[in-house]
Amino acid sequence: MPVSLKLAPPLPVTGVRLASVAAGIKADGSNDMVVMALPERATTAAVFTQSHFAAAPVQLARLHIDSRAGSIRALLVNSGNANAGTGAAGLDMTRGHCRALAERLDVSVAAVLPFSTGVIGQLLPDSMMLAGIERAADALGEDAQLDQWRAAAEGIMTTDTRPKLTSRQCSIGGQTVTLTGFAKGAGMIEPNMATMLAYVFTDAAIDKTLLDTMLRRAVATSFNAISVDSDTSTNDSLVLCATHEGPAVSQGSADEMVFQEALDALCLDLAQAIIRDAEGATKFVSVRVEQGDSTEECRCVARAIANSPLVKTALFASDANVGRLLAAIGKAEVPKPVNSRLTRALDASAIRVLVGEVSAFEAGGVAPGYTEERGAAVFAQEDIQITIQLGRGDAMFCMYTSDLSHDYVSINADYRS
Amino acid sequence: MPVSLKLAPPLPVTGVRLASVAAGIKADGSNDMVVMALPERATTAAVFTQSHFAAAPVQLARLHIDSRAGSIRALLVNSGNANAGTGAAGLDMTRGHCRALAERLDVSVAAVLPFSTGVIGQLLPDSMMLAGIERAADALGEDAQLDQWRAAAEGIMTTDTRPKLTSRQCSIGGQTVTLTGFAKGAGMIEPNMATMLAYVFTDAAIDKTLLDTMLRRAVATSFNAISVDSDTSTNDSLVLCATHEGPAVSQGSADEMVFQEALDALCLDLAQAIIRDAEGATKFVSVRVEQGDSTEECRCVARAIANSPLVKTALFASDANVGRLLAAIGKAEVPKPVNSRLTRALDASAIRVLVGEVSAFEAGGVAPGYTEERGAAVFAQEDIQITIQLGRGDAMFCMYTSDLSHDYVSINADYRS
Repeated sequence: MPVSLKLAPPLPVTGVRLASVAAGIKADGSNDMVVMALPERATTAAVFTQSHFAAAPVQLARLHIDSRAGSIRALLVNSGNANAGTGAAGLDMTRGHCRALAERLDVSVAAVLPFSTGVIGQLLPDSMMLAGIERAADALGEDAQLDQWRAAAEGIMTTDTRPKLTSRQCSIGGQTVTLTGFAKGAGMIEPNMATMLAYVFTDAAIDKTLLDTMLRRAVATSFNAISVDSDTSTNDSLVLCATHEGPAVSQGSADEMVFQEALDALCLDLAQAIIRDAEGATKFVSVRVEQGDSTEECRCVARAIANSPLVKTALFASDANVGRLLAAIGKAEVPKPVNSRLTRALDASAIRVLVGEVSAFEAGGVAPGYTEERGAAVFAQEDIQITIQLGRGDAMFCMYTSDLSHDYVSINADYRS
Repeated sequence: MPVSLKLAPPLPVTGVRLASVAAGIKADGSNDMVVMALPERATTAAVFTQSHFAAAPVQLARLHIDSRAGSIRALLVNSGNANAGTGAAGLDMTRGHCRALAERLDVSVAAVLPFSTGVIGQLLPDSMMLAGIERAADALGEDAQLDQWRAAAEGIMTTDTRPKLTSRQCSIGGQTVTLTGFAKGAGMIEPNMATMLAYVFTDAAIDKTLLDTMLRRAVATSFNAISVDSDTSTNDSLVLCATHEGPAVSQGSADEMVFQEALDALCLDLAQAIIRDAEGATKFVSVRVEQGDSTEECRCVARAIANSPLVKTALFASDANVGRLLAAIGKAEVPKPVNSRLTRALDASAIRVLVGEVSAFEAGGVAPGYTEERGAAVFAQEDIQITIQLGRGDAMFCMYTSDLSHDYVSINADYRS
């Protein structure tokens, strides 16, 4: 059961055509292939996993998007098989699938971006993929209606318990601009799913350079600020497409900030939805580190807490275990301070720890008036905020994570039984 | 139940006097205080936690050992309370305990090194500590016999299921030199234990500078090569004392290497014993990364695997999940290569993964002849070796870890129930 996963209702985006089919990759016969087609003037930006073992589709998608100024015309996604750890054979096969879709849509091979998610280390069923591509291309109609958006959000799922599809709107030059995105999430199971895929579409007209910049800004505080179990997958990809059917957003304008805010919010909605539906999650936890010397310093401390198995099991047990928070902060490998007045190490005596609104630790010791009962009341909630004030600057970073439950171990260990 | 924890029988070390008492810090009335007394000519080296939140005793022990060339005369350990996160009050109290023991032994305050392990964030019971120190000082007799060594190894325990006490011997100038050590281990529970303490004694005569060097060498491949859950505690300490009752080991001599080998072996015995008795451990896993550009590169890859919850749950399930190993290698944050011919990133196509003796992944894909059954047969064993060949140099690092079981979550989450 996801932890209070509520998303604003989705809205269609003009210029996006969608088709979802069951190609037969998933054994249960559910939809496992999605084709998204874009108009000729569309622009596309993308960010990919930093893994040294990027999967074949990631390698090819990177190549295709780097090779052109714009004009990505189609995205091809399959779920059920990640085409990762498949060597030269996997890369050849993905190239063939892009070519097949490109021919059907009468675009160049490099105008197609491929994506896969699912089991690692197995070759895709080539003929099923090719037949699926034919049927998906046939099924592409006019601009997608809501049911097609919902089908696409479901078609990319692997072990998510529900689709993650939502929209935001903003006003650009008096006109309404829509941003709609869907994502599939955080589960590397059965035996290993190569995990995060997210697609965001807007009808605004934004050139590729600005689109790139805005996507990178948005990802820093959303998809790059979530952690389930510290594992980065071979297939993580995030794509932002602008169909240019609506008003233009130009660099340096006030519109840029308006659009950026909407994009940031949508990416955060989707990223948080992934955490709320994380494997075995019973808690949604925000780890906010503030008063840091640099954003990177705050990020390191937040990450040390968010990835600590001891903190995460304490969260599962609703145990406001301040000692474990201190131990996690204590082990954070922070960068050299930017401010030259600071010593390298964090100063324990300057650090304050709050659970919810309750100060739990300050001046090197337990905060006056803090009791385990007050902390436990906060940790018993489903949504928990932990705040760390480093007392040495004004930088801030917020990270989102889940707890570590018996179900996490069961899902990741016992799937064969 | 520890995973096949077998240690060579312990031997007493001439010049070491030991006393263990129940000071009343542990609620169950078992021994919770150990005093170790050393002769005047003894030399001592120590390494401590790198945590930003070093506990009061660690802060003071560092100060004491840095302030003198040698002549540490006593070690004072309590279990049951870590005196961590206790601010200035905790530091004052520890100073008082060192002074009390120093007065009883007629040595200077700085000749006493304090250590604590147990619950974080609570002040020590001061009068109980002082009364315990009196009784322990009274109980110090002649050189410790085996039953006193066993009592000391038990007296420092918190949640270990059994004491970890063992010896090695080597021959220096025709004379037998003994090294005996004991350690307490990897468990930060109820509600948080500040974890690793280890004490090693030898009758050899070694000056402080060489003792320091040799301890640092030994720790790199033993205590710094183990990981249960990636959490570093506020209290981790390792001490090496030479009583100078036996033959001398001098720098640059062949004896230095002979002694170093014995010390390395003893530290590895104790470090591995901690992993074998880790919370909820059902498997003992060696992660050997070889053919790396640098030791640090190998260490980063080994650590990424050893700390991956997805790898650790797969180990628990005896699932030879190569995909998860690849994902873990893929996320390793390796340093810039030393060899200028190498590119920054690891080269996935050059990497080979072996589970036990079985090649599972090579040339960018599943190894010819590898089957899940062959991998599962290896992972079903209690002792598992995973080997990663990076194919880009001749550096090597081996790390030791355990699996992530339901018991780990239970021990760390359910302790109140």
